[in-house]
Amino acid sequence: MDIQAKVAVIMGSKSDFDTVKPCFDTLLKFGVRFEARVMSAHRTPDLVCEYAKSAEKSGIKVIIAAAGKAAHLGGFIAAHTTLPVIGLPIKSSTLDGLDSLLSIVQMPSGIPVATVAIDGSANAALLACEILALLDPELADKLKAERVKMHKGVVEKDNELQRDLGL
Amino acid sequence: MDIQAKVAVIMGSKSDFDTVKPCFDTLLKFGVRFEARVMSAHRTPDLVCEYAKSAEKSGIKVIIAAAGKAAHLGGFIAAHTTLPVIGLPIKSSTLDGLDSLLSIVQMPSGIPVATVAIDGSANAALLACEILALLDPELADKLKAERVKMHKGVVEKDNELQRDLGL
Amino acid sequence: MDIQAKVAVIMGSKSDFDTVKPCFDTLLKFGVRFEARVMSAHRTPDLVCEYAKSAEKSGIKVIIAAAGKAAHLGGFIAAHTTLPVIGLPIKSSTLDGLDSLLSIVQMPSGIPVATVAIDGSANAALLACEILALLDPELADKLKAERVKMHKGVVEKDNELQRDLGL
Amino acid sequence: MDIQAKVAVIMGSKSDFDTVKPCFDTLLKFGVRFEARVMSAHRTPDLVCEYAKSAEKSGIKVIIAAAGKAAHLGGFIAAHTTLPVIGLPIKSSTLDGLDSLLSIVQMPSGIPVATVAIDGSANAALLACEILALLDPELADKLKAERVKMHKGVVEKDNELQRDLGL
Amino acid sequence: MDIQAKVAVIMGSKSDFDTVKPCFDTLLKFGVRFEARVMSAHRTPDLVCEYAKSAEKSGIKVIIAAAGKAAHLGGFIAAHTTLPVIGLPIKSSTLDGLDSLLSIVQMPSGIPVATVAIDGSANAALLACEILALLDPELADKLKAERVKMHKGVVEKDNELQRDLGL
Amino acid sequence: MDIQAKVAVIMGSKSDFDTVKPCFDTLLKFGVRFEARVMSAHRTPDLVCEYAKSAEKSGIKVIIAAAGKAAHLGGFIAAHTTLPVIGLPIKSSTLDGLDSLLSIVQMPSGIPVATVAIDGSANAALLACEILALLDPELADKLKAERVKMHKGVVEKDNELQRDLGL
Amino acid sequence: MDIQAKVAVIMGSKSDFDTVKPCFDTLLKFGVRFEARVMSAHRTPDLVCEYAKSAEKSGIKVIIAAAGKAAHLGGFIAAHTTLPVIGLPIKSSTLDGLDSLLSIVQMPSGIPVATVAIDGSANAALLACEILALLDPELADKLKAERVKMHKGVVEKDNELQRDLGL
Amino acid sequence: MDIQAKVAVIMGSKSDFDTVKPCFDTLLKFGVRFEARVMSAHRTPDLVCEYAKSAEKSGIKVIIAAAGKAAHLGGFIAAHTTLPVIGLPIKSSTLDGLDSLLSIVQMPSGIPVATVAIDGSANAALLACEILALLDPELADKLKAERVKMHKGVVEKDNELQRDLGL
Repeated sequence: MDIQAKVAVIMGSKSDFDTVKPCFDTLLKFGVRFEARVMSAHRTPDLVCEYAKSAEKSGIKVIIAAAGKAAHLGGFIAAHTTLPVIGLPIKSSTLDGLDSLLSIVQMPSGIPVATVAIDGSANAALLACEILALLDPELADKLKAERVKMHKGVVEKDNELQRDLGL
Repeated sequence: MDIQAKVAVIMGSKSDFDTVKPCFDTLLKFGVRFEARVMSAHRTPDLVCEYAKSAEKSGIKVIIAAAGKAAHLGGFIAAHTTLPVIGLPIKSSTLDGLDSLLSIVQMPSGIPVATVAIDGSANAALLACEILALLDPELADKLKAERVKMHKGVVEKDNELQRDLGL
Repeated sequence: MDIQAKVAVIMGSKSDFDTVKPCFDTLLKFGVRFEARVMSAHRTPDLVCEYAKSAEKSGIKVIIAAAGKAAHLGGFIAAHTTLPVIGLPIKSSTLDGLDSLLSIVQMPSGIPVATVAIDGSANAALLACEILALLDPELADKLKAERVKMHKGVVEKDNELQRDLGL
Repeated sequence: MDIQAKVAVIMGSKSDFDTVKPCFDTLLKFGVRFEARVMSAHRTPDLVCEYAKSAEKSGIKVIIAAAGKAAHLGGFIAAHTTLPVIGLPIKSSTLDGLDSLLSIVQMPSGIPVATVAIDGSANAALLACEILALLDPELADKLKAERVKMHKGVVEKDNELQRDLGL
Repeated sequence: MDIQAKVAVIMGSKSDFDTVKPCFDTLLKFGVRFEARVMSAHRTPDLVCEYAKSAEKSGIKVIIAAAGKAAHLGGFIAAHTTLPVIGLPIKSSTLDGLDSLLSIVQMPSGIPVATVAIDGSANAALLACEILALLDPELADKLKAERVKMHKGVVEKDNELQRDLGL
Repeated sequence: MDIQAKVAVIMGSKSDFDTVKPCFDTLLKFGVRFEARVMSAHRTPDLVCEYAKSAEKSGIKVIIAAAGKAAHLGGFIAAHTTLPVIGLPIKSSTLDGLDSLLSIVQMPSGIPVATVAIDGSANAALLACEILALLDPELADKLKAERVKMHKGVVEKDNELQRDLGL
Repeated sequence: MDIQAKVAVIMGSKSDFDTVKPCFDTLLKFGVRFEARVMSAHRTPDLVCEYAKSAEKSGIKVIIAAAGKAAHLGGFIAAHTTLPVIGLPIKSSTLDGLDSLLSIVQMPSGIPVATVAIDGSANAALLACEILALLDPELADKLKAERVKMHKGVVEKDNELQRDLGL
Repeated sequence: MDIQAKVAVIMGSKSDFDTVKPCFDTLLKFGVRFEARVMSAHRTPDLVCEYAKSAEKSGIKVIIAAAGKAAHLGGFIAAHTTLPVIGLPIKSSTLDGLDSLLSIVQMPSGIPVATVAIDGSANAALLACEILALLDPELADKLKAERVKMHKGVVEKDNELQRDLGL
């Protein structure tokens, strides 16, 4: 365990690694320490429970839970901690991710899970960063710088379009 | 705890009592001993976990889990026992029960939950009875007798219709 | 007919064989005797009816019905037996399996079908095993052992992830 | 049994009578002899089977099957006859009739069910009349006359609107 | 125009030919004379209108309308004739055919369209045959013979399965 | 016919009057001359066709078509004119307006219908005004003034909220 | 900026270029001057805001906004101008475009967005042309000529079908 | 403006007040200073923009945006700030809140919105508290105490159920 980790990224299944990768990449880009775990709400419930209960003491500030189908991982973690939990719905082989989304976002009153878009891995990481940035002005500055960069990226694409269309 | 109980009916919220009532009524009709609990996957996860782990030793054979919205109760119980778990999706105030249904039925490989219709409380009980009837020939006979009764009920309604239409 | 078969797996169409295969594999893994049949609720209704009516006498304890689209097979079988019937919705070429799921799970009161996830073939078999395990302590032990194995599998994947990420 | 009946209207449950009533009214309006039955695909499968098999010999030309939820009635009847079967999906207490519609319309290749709108009882009757009109020129004329009447009805409503708006 | 044609198959777009082909094949198999047309409710409304109005006089008994997306073709034809109109929803590039299905099946009261499954081309033809068989005992016999053949086909597949599984 | 009418509002059924009323109110508020008609794509197709064909000559600039269920009215009108046609989906008794929306918005390539929200009657009128405002600077000014008014309305509600919460 | 441009086509992301291309092609075919921009409601909100506010003064008459997922671009532009805004929902990697469609079409009262079909790029352009044609009789004639051409295209396809089927 | 406010609750329409009320109540219960505003993404975009841009400087740490239908408010705010934005989808008169949910949660990469359940007002507030608790150990303790209280509440309901059922 990385004792300086601020974010935990929990995947319900390692088979979702490619979909979740932009989450890791984004955390790395912003220099946020994280730990990544494969743990299953249904196959290793005790590990999840134990992990969730001790996360705050381990220094974790935000937990990202990525899961598909009847995606209980986020809710299960949230039941055991008052840290903010971000739910990342993964599109599975049927229903186009609607099952994952509804299983995560429709949490009953009392235990929220902060849900991002289906397969929205980068946004899960960005949301974690935005939360951490409340504690870390340097990270806040990096997020603002990223916005400027995104803005420039769009403007470049706009220029490209003008060239492509000969406008 | 009812030490002779064969079926456990777990409700995620007592506010669903009216919807779940036909489940209790059906178990009573068939003389199946049951215990009923309000336990929440998210508000009392440890109670659910402990309950699910000890259910088999307590003599429970089948567990019915009734829950709405992001309905994790059935999957959460199933994660802690190899007893058959029946999921009963409860229609909530939005999405007409689709969220409950998908959260329960779309379980990932390894941990099944036997799902019945949205608000299908009587069927949850009947399914439990069908499973118990494998162990209890008398119960099997009662189920067959009920089918005969249902058959007669339909025939009576058919006669009623003839009269109503003057056919 | 296998006179010792405990589980019957009925497929509405042989074209779904590849999707249903994990069901057979799982039953084999747990040493559960089964018979497998192709029978169609719509093309061979009399065969299905006859089969369902005599299943109990043949020693069958649980019936798995795999079908797609307007998937009536499970309900049709359940109408003719009080054995537990497990419905396995198969994703067809349109609507992503939603039609199959709703046609199977939304059974009217009186005749339940225990529904598993769309294309959830392994879970259909596991649910059958959980039911049979009520009659067979050895099978119950195998199911528990499988849970331990699944747990280890997840832990291994977790270790793999740590290596992959260099954490 | 009405030996001159041309249309059979089968309801899966008498509780749908009010929804199905426009079907009866429409058949009466066009002077089409019909018989109406309450029979359930799941509670009285043998009655349905027997009825469907003998319908053609009894002089029935078209069968209307009205059912809700996992609505198997139409497909079940169609499996036992080559008469045209019209499926009338009934909206139930959840899912707004989508389950009924998909369970009826998504029939697999080989056994069609002619599906009308959710709760579209009058249209089920009209479709039956259109089919019968191929055998009965007088009925065909009545259908055409009804179209003229509907046309007039719309024009009257148009006039009403002009008055209401003071246009 | 084929003056002996009994069935008209109207396609909203020739690009759906491959999907509609089983409709033509089925009509050919049963020896039903048909004519096939490409006509669009939106691009050639006058042709559709004229065709629908004169269909009955041309000897057409049943019209099949195949269309995708906002599929108005069936309803548009049905508005101009009292012949039975069969709507065949074609799956388009988005929404998996749900738009086509709802646009066809949800016809308002007064003008029914007999809807079959999404991409259910063979069933559209079979439904037309079932309707024509009311006028043609020979065709009725062919339909019954086809049912026997389908039955045998399933039994063969069942035997195949036994061999494949070594049961 | 109002020879100065600029907008035609066509309702498929007068029973939708209450839902469509904000459309009339909005046109009146902006002083836009309109005519309102009840005409049905399915019950009075010839009237619709004739009306759509002659609308441009009558001075109509924009046509609003309000319809529910399999809502073909907008597409049907658009097939007969190159005037802009605005489709207003009306929520019917089932499916919450999804059928109406998809039947209107999913028009195939070549014949667009400008679709607004389900039951979005005021917006249908506003869109018509925005189009007409391209020809009428005074109307453009009114639209801008309305935006200012809406802005003020929100600010007032904001003030109300402050008072209500005692903030 | 093209000072004679009448239509602005704004894309939320250049990655949708291939889907949007038929929009450009259609505008070119009708000789309508347009400018095309990549601007994002979320990444470059100030550019969008500024653009929308000044569009009318720049001579723009109609704005087409193409976006996917939570597609706010059209509504965001419409909030800043009273020019007609056409929303073009782009199908993204999940949910088949339903998210894009609902995010665009379900605008609250006061600010309409004229929505076309998912990926309906040509229709977005045609709708813009229909609106501009109110100001430009020559363009109106071109649209009518296109309708004649489309009509001929369908008739040709019809002839092709006759040949293909040997009818 | 409350200079000590930590949370801003922005409502797109004051008509949603009753639905949003549990959000205010929850913030009050935890003693979290908040300000509440009615501001509309479409009717007062400039106010929203200005507010979002200055929120961080005003001391706001988390923004909750409640909106229905094509609910752009959350995304629009998130586009102008790197503070965490919580999206609260409000169920409107059609589509049961699915439009609101998808419009909020399906944000494109780069700009996350932390989405809670449809009408999940209390959870929106709790999520805000969980985020603020990272800065405020006292608030963290209150959240944990609330969990204990919720736990007790469920246990009480469980006792009630035992009494009600006479178990």
